[in-house]
Amino acid sequence: MKPSRPQQLFRKTVTMQPENQSSPVRWITDWMTPDGLWYRRNHYNYPASKVDGLQVVGAVRCPLTLSCEDIRSRPAKSVVSVMECAGNRRTLFRPRVYGVPWNEGAISQAEWTGVPLRDLLQEAGICSTAREVVCWGIDGEGKDKGPFARSLPLGKSLHPDTLVAYAQNGRLLSPEHGAPLRLIVPGWYAMASVKWLSRIEVVTEQFQGYYQKEDYHYYPFPHSDEGKRPVTVLRVNSLIRYPHDFSVLKTGHHRVEGLAWTGKGVIRRVEVSVDRGEHWHRARLQQRPWDHPYAWVQWSWNWKDLQPGKYEIWSRAADTAGRMQPLRAKWNRKGYGYNAVCRSRVQVE
Amino acid sequence: MKPSRPQQLFRKTVTMQPENQSSPVRWITDWMTPDGLWYRRNHYNYPASKVDGLQVVGAVRCPLTLSCEDIRSRPAKSVVSVMECAGNRRTLFRPRVYGVPWNEGAISQAEWTGVPLRDLLQEAGICSTAREVVCWGIDGEGKDKGPFARSLPLGKSLHPDTLVAYAQNGRLLSPEHGAPLRLIVPGWYAMASVKWLSRIEVVTEQFQGYYQKEDYHYYPFPHSDEGKRPVTVLRVNSLIRYPHDFSVLKTGHHRVEGLAWTGKGVIRRVEVSVDRGEHWHRARLQQRPWDHPYAWVQWSWNWKDLQPGKYEIWSRAADTAGRMQPLRAKWNRKGYGYNAVCRSRVQVE
Repeated sequence: MKPSRPQQLFRKTVTMQPENQSSPVRWITDWMTPDGLWYRRNHYNYPASKVDGLQVVGAVRCPLTLSCEDIRSRPAKSVVSVMECAGNRRTLFRPRVYGVPWNEGAISQAEWTGVPLRDLLQEAGICSTAREVVCWGIDGEGKDKGPFARSLPLGKSLHPDTLVAYAQNGRLLSPEHGAPLRLIVPGWYAMASVKWLSRIEVVTEQFQGYYQKEDYHYYPFPHSDEGKRPVTVLRVNSLIRYPHDFSVLKTGHHRVEGLAWTGKGVIRRVEVSVDRGEHWHRARLQQRPWDHPYAWVQWSWNWKDLQPGKYEIWSRAADTAGRMQPLRAKWNRKGYGYNAVCRSRVQVE
Repeated sequence: MKPSRPQQLFRKTVTMQPENQSSPVRWITDWMTPDGLWYRRNHYNYPASKVDGLQVVGAVRCPLTLSCEDIRSRPAKSVVSVMECAGNRRTLFRPRVYGVPWNEGAISQAEWTGVPLRDLLQEAGICSTAREVVCWGIDGEGKDKGPFARSLPLGKSLHPDTLVAYAQNGRLLSPEHGAPLRLIVPGWYAMASVKWLSRIEVVTEQFQGYYQKEDYHYYPFPHSDEGKRPVTVLRVNSLIRYPHDFSVLKTGHHRVEGLAWTGKGVIRRVEVSVDRGEHWHRARLQQRPWDHPYAWVQWSWNWKDLQPGKYEIWSRAADTAGRMQPLRAKWNRKGYGYNAVCRSRVQVE
């Protein structure tokens, strides 16, 4: 008989074709998501062809054609950043919405290494007529809505932490996560971090691609497109990792644990309530948010001398931009940006 | 870049200690669950000691002490049987209930090989005062509520398909599934199929163990134990494997697929409705139910010429014992035996 040993963790299939898998984020105790447990998010099957370099074209004075070696030989930068799919926790919206049914696992974290996109744009020389920077992947080439491409406003393109990355946690990117090159846009939802990046195009008009103009918008109404707004910056958010919703606990002491993250400023505090928001207790943060502003923070709070009964554990995070998780997430038709106070209901016996 | 290939499937962690993992049952196309994708259900950590044989004791004329080799050298019998945890789909009860939060994956299927329990009981010679047969595991030895043990009525103990099994799908049992010996009680919920079986005890009084008298009962009321009934036979049930609840489909043809199973008689028919039960369409069964009465049946129904809109796909199974899945599952405090009509809501674009 085997002695008890740590349980093996795996990704979970969310859709079969294309491959979408969630990360067992609740069970991972490392601050950095192990490579094999990263969530996978695809709009198409994996590309059949290979990207062998990067072009910088469009409204630039001097178009560039760079090999991957060119890019890897330049001064590198590393950034720790959470990566969260805009549809993470979509299944929690009420009324329910249609789409890839992500529960809590469309989020992971890594240290990314690459070259600031800014360095490449400055070398190419942006024309004064430039308006946006379109980042083209090769997934979905030849398909109606493809290839996958997203534009960034000039400001975010020129931000020193926006990277053309070639490494994740110190290893070259894997095919599933965009090898050889992908964009990393810290602080934004993950649709901006284009994988299998092959071309950077500076454009003078608003980009009209499907994933830019139709998908990845907050549509506040069920039957009209009125008031649609693009999905960009991560909302302030938290997850209770332990205890699990609707689990049964023993009396005594329990350490409530979780994660908190934001795309604006950094996490300022995390609070826990066990009486449906009447009292809030400050959680202890295990990382100093300013050390890695785009990273998630692990937090914990000691729940002492627990007595039999039913409880709701709530967590809410606040960031230095003055934002705090709401009690109810803003409903939107495509189910993006869920960030209501996280709830875990438990019975103590 | 990798060409597209079949997606790798994994088990999913449901609780960490003890180890409970669900099977990706929705995504498995084989009729038999591959060994590595079997769900794991534990009440305790894995036993540290090893079972080295089986005792048959109590109200018998001639107590037996059998080695595993003894048992494996006897005439063997194989039975294909679904194994479903009584708490499977517990998360679908409304109002919600507390307990291990199983979604759809606490079910798997294998061919089991072993010796009929009846053969051993007949060899030992059951006394006329006998009332039940208690099957003792060794998991939880020394704990308050342990070790895990369950009693069977004499009738089910003497049923020729109730096995002391040593092999699953032609291979010796793995440590996680009860090696070297486990009980297999076809047609009953899985709590009856005691793992790490070490002792068979014929008793003359009703067995009072925790997992027999308190746990694994249907408690119809939230705050009283009135009307409690033991969990035994599998309810008639079905699962829609494809399409996934709240997914988005393209127009055209789709093959609705699923599983159906029962513990009484065999599956008689499976029906699918796409108009909230107004019309029901007969699904095609891929196995002949009488060939393997304890097995699940794979079914499919061709949904033709699908037009844009929102639909609810419902499936319901009926068995030859005259039972049919209800529209609403019978609520019970511990969340056992969920078997409402299975629903998958989709949006067609």
